Amino acid sequence: MTTVAKPVSRLIDEFSRLPGIGPKTASRLTFFLLRVPDEQTLALAEALRDLTEQVVYCERCYNISDRSPCSICASPERDHSTLCVVEEPLDVMALERTHEYKGVYHVLHGAISPVEGIGPTDLRIDELMDRLRHDTVNEVILATNPNLEGEATAMYLERLIKPLEVRATRPAYGLPVGGDLEYADEVTLARALEGRREL
Amino acid sequence: MTTVAKPVSRLIDEFSRLPGIGPKTASRLTFFLLRVPDEQTLALAEALRDLTEQVVYCERCYNISDRSPCSICASPERDHSTLCVVEEPLDVMALERTHEYKGVYHVLHGAISPVEGIGPTDLRIDELMDRLRHDTVNEVILATNPNLEGEATAMYLERLIKPLEVRATRPAYGLPVGGDLEYADEVTLARALEGRREL
Repeated sequence: MTTVAKPVSRLIDEFSRLPGIGPKTASRLTFFLLRVPDEQTLALAEALRDLTEQVVYCERCYNISDRSPCSICASPERDHSTLCVVEEPLDVMALERTHEYKGVYHVLHGAISPVEGIGPTDLRIDELMDRLRHDTVNEVILATNPNLEGEATAMYLERLIKPLEVRATRPAYGLPVGGDLEYADEVTLARALEGRREL
Repeated sequence: MTTVAKPVSRLIDEFSRLPGIGPKTASRLTFFLLRVPDEQTLALAEALRDLTEQVVYCERCYNISDRSPCSICASPERDHSTLCVVEEPLDVMALERTHEYKGVYHVLHGAISPVEGIGPTDLRIDELMDRLRHDTVNEVILATNPNLEGEATAMYLERLIKPLEVRATRPAYGLPVGGDLEYADEVTLARALEGRREL
């Protein structure tokens, strides 16, 4: 005999399957939704359903979008000769938030990771090379994550790109703006010194 | 021009309306759901819809349930002469998890809080008094939260219950099991000493 209503325990279970949400948070979210107007709960349900039905991958850059090609690839205002390679769609969002980057993207959907069994063929690397061969690209910014897997992926791509005589760059390492020098880890600090610039 | 797909930004917005979920967590959850099979996303959507359609309040104890009276109130195996008063349905869940309590419940749906403008008439107090007058109740456990509002509510209820000659109790204050004495706050420690028992 369960003492909690089935629809309640089922929603707690479903929330618990999301990353970073344990049973306690899942209960809290469920009981929160029991107190709000039904419209809010139904709007969330609707948004989830639409996500499964309306999201597609852009045939050029493999970013998620509601159309293909996506609004970035289709825009005449973007600089199509600069291509920024990232691991995930979330990285595109982060770069777009800067409002600084005017080029286009290519989403790999992961990074090379022998530990997790992810090799180059599991990523959108062939598609990237096709674009570089057929489009007029002047610069490829390898903006994979600044960690082991991201570095390895950038190095791998750099070797593939070199023969095509396309400029390959990587974002600068350094101190985070607004941060505190004393809290920077030694690797970041060393890289920041290494990349120091004339004032 | 938005650069993120509309169904994606809409789900991020909806997730952000939940308590304790900021825009970053909302993005993380959304992009997680983009990577899992559609079934998982749809199961969550379905569970949300069912919550709005299938959850009712028990006409006796005002706990949430999928039927009324709820499975606890309807059970002949529970001790209907012991009534535990709690603030929220979540508290019922917590007490049920102990597997120790065999009585029934009464959910107030809040606590008296002059600061938030919540008075006795906003809670299920009249309904509690009705039950105490018409059912055969021997003991009322006032298990409101061990904070200012919960204490005030328990004291208010105690005064109402006294004339009915029903035993009113309150759970013990003391050190949490598995805790560390040195980390206990002074109020809890003082209450634990005050309530000390003969070995």
